[in-house]
Amino acid sequence: MSHLLTGVPASPGIAIAKAYRLESEESVPQRKAVDDTAAEKQRLKEAVEAAKADIDRIRESTLERLGPQKAEIFEAHLFLLDDPDLIDAAMDQIESEGINAEFALYEVASGIMEALRSMDNELLRERAADVKDITGRVISKLEGRKHSALSELNSETILVAKDLTPSDTAQLNLEFVRGFVTEIGSRTSHSAIMARSLELAAVVGAGADASEIRTGDTVILDATAGQVIVNPTDRQLEEYSVRKREYEEYQLRMRSYVDRPSVTADGVQVELASNIGGIDDLEKVLANGADGIGLFRTEFLYMGRSAFPSEEEQYSVYKHVLEKMGGKRVVIRTLDIGGDKELSYMQLPKESNPFLGLRAIRLCLEREDLFRTQLRALLRASVHGKLAIMFPMIAVLSELREAKRILAEERAKLEQEGIAVSHSLEVGIMIEIPAAALAADILAKEVDFFSIGTNDLIQYTMAADRMNESVSYLYQPHHPSILRLVQLVIQAANRNGKWAGMCGEMAGDSAAIPLLLGLGLHEFSMSASSVLPARELVSRLSKQEWSRLAEQALGMSSQQEVLDFVNQQLRSEA
Amino acid sequence: MSHLLTGVPASPGIAIAKAYRLESEESVPQRKAVDDTAAEKQRLKEAVEAAKADIDRIRESTLERLGPQKAEIFEAHLFLLDDPDLIDAAMDQIESEGINAEFALYEVASGIMEALRSMDNELLRERAADVKDITGRVISKLEGRKHSALSELNSETILVAKDLTPSDTAQLNLEFVRGFVTEIGSRTSHSAIMARSLELAAVVGAGADASEIRTGDTVILDATAGQVIVNPTDRQLEEYSVRKREYEEYQLRMRSYVDRPSVTADGVQVELASNIGGIDDLEKVLANGADGIGLFRTEFLYMGRSAFPSEEEQYSVYKHVLEKMGGKRVVIRTLDIGGDKELSYMQLPKESNPFLGLRAIRLCLEREDLFRTQLRALLRASVHGKLAIMFPMIAVLSELREAKRILAEERAKLEQEGIAVSHSLEVGIMIEIPAAALAADILAKEVDFFSIGTNDLIQYTMAADRMNESVSYLYQPHHPSILRLVQLVIQAANRNGKWAGMCGEMAGDSAAIPLLLGLGLHEFSMSASSVLPARELVSRLSKQEWSRLAEQALGMSSQQEVLDFVNQQLRSEA
Repeated sequence: MSHLLTGVPASPGIAIAKAYRLESEESVPQRKAVDDTAAEKQRLKEAVEAAKADIDRIRESTLERLGPQKAEIFEAHLFLLDDPDLIDAAMDQIESEGINAEFALYEVASGIMEALRSMDNELLRERAADVKDITGRVISKLEGRKHSALSELNSETILVAKDLTPSDTAQLNLEFVRGFVTEIGSRTSHSAIMARSLELAAVVGAGADASEIRTGDTVILDATAGQVIVNPTDRQLEEYSVRKREYEEYQLRMRSYVDRPSVTADGVQVELASNIGGIDDLEKVLANGADGIGLFRTEFLYMGRSAFPSEEEQYSVYKHVLEKMGGKRVVIRTLDIGGDKELSYMQLPKESNPFLGLRAIRLCLEREDLFRTQLRALLRASVHGKLAIMFPMIAVLSELREAKRILAEERAKLEQEGIAVSHSLEVGIMIEIPAAALAADILAKEVDFFSIGTNDLIQYTMAADRMNESVSYLYQPHHPSILRLVQLVIQAANRNGKWAGMCGEMAGDSAAIPLLLGLGLHEFSMSASSVLPARELVSRLSKQEWSRLAEQALGMSSQQEVLDFVNQQLRSEA
Repeated sequence: MSHLLTGVPASPGIAIAKAYRLESEESVPQRKAVDDTAAEKQRLKEAVEAAKADIDRIRESTLERLGPQKAEIFEAHLFLLDDPDLIDAAMDQIESEGINAEFALYEVASGIMEALRSMDNELLRERAADVKDITGRVISKLEGRKHSALSELNSETILVAKDLTPSDTAQLNLEFVRGFVTEIGSRTSHSAIMARSLELAAVVGAGADASEIRTGDTVILDATAGQVIVNPTDRQLEEYSVRKREYEEYQLRMRSYVDRPSVTADGVQVELASNIGGIDDLEKVLANGADGIGLFRTEFLYMGRSAFPSEEEQYSVYKHVLEKMGGKRVVIRTLDIGGDKELSYMQLPKESNPFLGLRAIRLCLEREDLFRTQLRALLRASVHGKLAIMFPMIAVLSELREAKRILAEERAKLEQEGIAVSHSLEVGIMIEIPAAALAADILAKEVDFFSIGTNDLIQYTMAADRMNESVSYLYQPHHPSILRLVQLVIQAANRNGKWAGMCGEMAGDSAAIPLLLGLGLHEFSMSASSVLPARELVSRLSKQEWSRLAEQALGMSSQQEVLDFVNQQLRSEA
């Protein structure tokens, strides 16, 4: 009988295929006494080596298919298999308790996972999943089971699992896998992120009901709606075949905008740029024809390591991105660390309200050494493309002046050393604090551009932590209060002959783009996958018309009223 | 030789007198073996009873002199002396280890204090000081020492101590004590708060140097500047005698404003009201001739107890305050709990950024039962005076509408029950979230008044936790961004025929009052001790002139520029 499940739409797309159930291998090994502990330890050693060989193979192919950043996790796995707290500890248990390798490893790993899961630090908690992944692999080797047959699927398949580990997703055979469904997970869990990278339809967090899906069941995966239909009726199959075709046609139509300019119906040119979090994202940016990079988050350079990145290391990354983007503008944001984003090698005081604490530019102005290293790397890279440096979390003019003073000092030093720095380098700030938006006219005189960071701007303007579900009803990008702040910023920029962009999630939202265009926004920076739909939308909009409509929206009394108004206008235009 | 110390100006005033050093009684008792543990336990029991009798006496006299709220702490002390974890545990130690009572109690108390100090909750950490206070008292009794001679001072004295415990401050003989100096403490520590209540000059946190002051040393205490001069020169004595007289004359001059109206030099009437945190503050409000109460924080009703206050209990408090204030307006704020303010009997989820979390009206709309109880109590009390109900932390119109809907329901229920409710009751909101300030024109249509809560408004507008020292440089009440928001709110109120007030610290700041007056603020609510200086200041200002000057300040680029401008204007007017 047909059966409908709903979950989190993790990565869009529609797929229709047979299910393949990836059985969870969470069986608890039996404890057995062994006499020859030396032989047992040898057995563990061999299983570890075999597992390492597997992981190394996965690492190689991931590197090739998905780039160095995605392959990094497998280096971490190899590293874990050399960790004395894990394997040596299991060896000791075999010896001291006279037990089998499977159980010894399981016991040691369980202890480690429990300790990790109890940590206050989310990154450490996620490490527990890695420990589970690798010990499962070693135990499979010990038990003579095949760890996973994922790379050997050979017909069109929708994968179904409790969850997918990093090594699972890295081994998906994209020739045959059309999408996946998991019982647990959220939009930000590893499997969801991978699905978007692989452009694979995926629904995660579908709940325990998904465990009822069997290998061979026919499944319709409407990942755009977050729906899964198991054993659909003929009528449903027919309906979704049509929808699938329409979706694919829509995708094709979007592809046709790759090389077109970003121009409104009444001939106004805008910039549709993309946000990136690392060099691995560049490929998607180029494939989607973005007009530039509106936000390069440099935090990844600092994370998942044991010391600060050197000037040289940073320089080569910035140079690479600038060169890859050709003459297109690349806005690089200086380090936005502190608050909730911690570095293991940098001790920061614990704060009661980290989102209102010592982060981003506030921290950089206190830790000038870090800041100067990054600025030097940026200044040196500036000759390799069209660079714009952006300071995050500026609240008041004195912070901007201080940051610019330090930048000028580093520039002067480089020039004295005979190192070239671009003369067309732009310097701007994120507007993500209400105080900065309210004083945009003052700040505009001393920058080349503004980029509105709506995620933080909304959270501060509403006084509602955007990660806190109890107050998530206050995250209202279309609220007139937010639109009024956005208008202040854009007006201040335009009146001072500067450009205004936006790099928060709002910039890629099809119900916000018309209003932002109407308010005079010049640059919209979004995830790469939103660029083409945005370009198509912009091509249908009249800027002049939306200037008038946006003015009307500013006087409304709620987000709902604004949304209804925009949607009605868009429908009547279509 | 003359010697200058500086500390925190905890409570203003100038005093010149001999020092009396209160020796710290932190000696660690010696561990001694005892044979007759039964006798030892009896000894402890008697010492506890003697200590209880002392504390009860202090409680009685505090109740009489300072009111029920200040006496509460001694009830807590009596309660602690009945806590089995403390006294019974010490009894057990005497028995099981065969040791003396002093050491047993010291050991048990140290363990409890350590546990309390390691807590994440500031209130619990403060409990450690109470445990120390009472065990010190019991140990003094055991050792046959007098715990404190504070009540027996009989000549003009400036008290010097490492710190003052609640029982120390409660026993100060105000006939002779002219002020005090402590080595540790901050503006918000218990001794500082008590000093302000007692209107006693005090410098706290003067550091280890203060331990050099001996009984009999002559001391000049300039608590307004946070300075302490030990063994002053004749010249200094002369200088400070003059300053002291000037200060006392100033105080007298201020007193002359008690019965005058709050009117500007050009004849504009304003309201200078006061903030209160409980009924004990009423006396000071009346003594300082405030025009009303602009903020009654109702949290004290909910704190330091084991269950929610009943409707009846709340009603009697609200009624008392309204009656005491005669026909003057009393703005009562509904419960602002959650975030950093916790109740021991109410489980709330732990939040990563409590200042951006589920607090105040957000929590009340989720816990309607609590909210309805408070609203009923307020509605019933409304017939006993001039009541205004104020909702805190309103961000968007839907929250206001929801709160008003619930209020209307409770009003209808009461009327059905035949219980009278005032028809002139006002309903308004705090403006302390940027979104609300930005949409003040929308909100103004559905309230009777606004009261700007600058403490929170500044923290959200600057995205800087006001309790976090690393970002305290961003707490800038005079920044043009803040002034612009304040202007938006006042204009929106005035254009809609509503009144606008302010109940944050800024409202009592003499460098802010002229600007706020110029922007059209009608009501200024401040600590009671600021009311008379504010009235004197207002009487010298021209509203028309400051309208013009405030407009100028809004265009400036920094807080410093605004402050310099205001101070220069005030000087040139003087």
